Amino acid sequence: MSKQVHVGILGATGVVGQEMMKILEERDFPVASLRPIASARSAGSTVRFKGEDVTIVEASDSAFDGLDIVLGAAENDIAERFAPSIVKAGATFVDNSSAFRLDPKVPLVVPEINPEDVKWNSGIISNPNCTTIITMVAIAALAKESPVETIVASSYQAASGAGKAGLDELRAEALAYAKGESVEPKAFAYQLAFNVIPQIGGEQYMGYTSEEMKMQNEGRKILHLPEMNVSCTCVRVPVFRSHSVSVVLRTKEKISVERARALIAKAPGCRLVDDLKNKQYPMPLDTSDQDIVFVGRIREDLTDPNGLNLWCCGDQIRKGAATNTIQIAELLVK
Amino acid sequence: MSKQVHVGILGATGVVGQEMMKILEERDFPVASLRPIASARSAGSTVRFKGEDVTIVEASDSAFDGLDIVLGAAENDIAERFAPSIVKAGATFVDNSSAFRLDPKVPLVVPEINPEDVKWNSGIISNPNCTTIITMVAIAALAKESPVETIVASSYQAASGAGKAGLDELRAEALAYAKGESVEPKAFAYQLAFNVIPQIGGEQYMGYTSEEMKMQNEGRKILHLPEMNVSCTCVRVPVFRSHSVSVVLRTKEKISVERARALIAKAPGCRLVDDLKNKQYPMPLDTSDQDIVFVGRIREDLTDPNGLNLWCCGDQIRKGAATNTIQIAELLVK
Repeated sequence: MSKQVHVGILGATGVVGQEMMKILEERDFPVASLRPIASARSAGSTVRFKGEDVTIVEASDSAFDGLDIVLGAAENDIAERFAPSIVKAGATFVDNSSAFRLDPKVPLVVPEINPEDVKWNSGIISNPNCTTIITMVAIAALAKESPVETIVASSYQAASGAGKAGLDELRAEALAYAKGESVEPKAFAYQLAFNVIPQIGGEQYMGYTSEEMKMQNEGRKILHLPEMNVSCTCVRVPVFRSHSVSVVLRTKEKISVERARALIAKAPGCRLVDDLKNKQYPMPLDTSDQDIVFVGRIREDLTDPNGLNLWCCGDQIRKGAATNTIQIAELLVK
Repeated sequence: MSKQVHVGILGATGVVGQEMMKILEERDFPVASLRPIASARSAGSTVRFKGEDVTIVEASDSAFDGLDIVLGAAENDIAERFAPSIVKAGATFVDNSSAFRLDPKVPLVVPEINPEDVKWNSGIISNPNCTTIITMVAIAALAKESPVETIVASSYQAASGAGKAGLDELRAEALAYAKGESVEPKAFAYQLAFNVIPQIGGEQYMGYTSEEMKMQNEGRKILHLPEMNVSCTCVRVPVFRSHSVSVVLRTKEKISVERARALIAKAPGCRLVDDLKNKQYPMPLDTSDQDIVFVGRIREDLTDPNGLNLWCCGDQIRKGAATNTIQIAELLVK
């Protein structure tokens, strides 16, 4: 039986914040009251929730009083700035920023994989990186069968991973193309339409970007595999929604393709779409606006007897961000 | 000193055939005469070459008489159909189809890598697959330093890899999007605009497609590394021109990142564009209409001490097809 809870959304006006409200409604989350919280610029205006206009409150140290759960949909600096006030107000902060993800006192949770980790939180629970969530949901059942030792991954990440500005820019570029014009890139470093950009995030470690290192560092924490090594290449592609990832993973013991298919077919949060002969495999256009991670192209890795090659695809605004955050909140109210 | 040669182009009206004519002009190939050869449908019409209209000849067993070199820009069935007539006519067939690539009597040549292989031809020389050429040019200097044992690759392949129909379809989809409409896919199995499609070629071996197996099987022959194993995932992306490939390779002996950069910087046919801090790396929009393979994002593979991770990008119509074919022809007339 669930209790009714007072819910705040920090960063209510962004793509993820807006999606969170939609998903709270869809999943019939037991909301006693909703408090959208944003910068002074948006404060005073309203958002729609369950058919009513709700006034946006300005983020401040006192903005969280009386709340049970605060869903974080803001950038790292905002999350860091307000986390102490949220905890002090007695609320649990379920945060989608990367600010606290690797903090050993903060659980990092994908409810299909490590729901038990919410229990040891001390006021903050982090939601993992979108590409990491999608990849880990796809492979979690394999990791449970035999520990994953290494992953080589190349991503095909959608424009909306860069928020509304990214989405709008790709759309503007596509419309400009039709008119024989072009637009100056702002959200991305270069034109994304009809291009791919092999950099997401800044340089972090040995030539890898921050986004690329998340799959290793967050993946280790989610799967409880501190020794797992990941070589990741993150690439922005001209897709509006849904990230795709090409994955080669090696497990301690061999898992056959047949067994991998069976495990993924029944894994929570996964859908197996794996029939090359009939041209069935996950694609961003088919997987958007859904909460499921689609997995296909499962085959033996030709370079390692304990390796498997697969392709996965999921909506990074929903499962990669908003839905996963609300699933964590659901674990808290259970 | 080169001799003047009589050149035929089989499949003169396609994207690659047209590009071949452009490149023969650009590189000032010693053409004594040019004979464009195509199906009955195009025969009798003309193409422009060096400022003159040249009449297209219908492909037939006698169409190759008097030619020294025939450049093949047609599909496998056409290449197979006419190869015996070409050889019988005394011409050398430099073929861009995949029909003869793995034939042990046929050299498979990338002039920057294995030019010496043209010598043992007996009338047919094959031009490799486009994605394979781009990847092999990028890594050849590393393979020379120490044998490549394995490659894990994920490609980001442009629409024009599927010829004019692929190019036109992506363009039509983009224009339809701007009008709020959509078009029925024909060249590709699904809409490519704002999507990625993880299948190129039909199923061939253990769940891998024909396109994916080319990188292993053709790569082995080009690099003279018959034991090299490759796990490849080929993905079509909404880009007009230039394929990109995310590559993790393991060599027998360790090659440092610094050494790899130095080797690639001076490798024939390569340009090193590798400065993440200043957002410099290869991208399809920058590498199209050129003959160079651009290489960047070189870093240690975090999953194997002898591994290197890199990103390469090149124009698949030029270096991946037309230019490479003409470079092979240049070796013949030297």
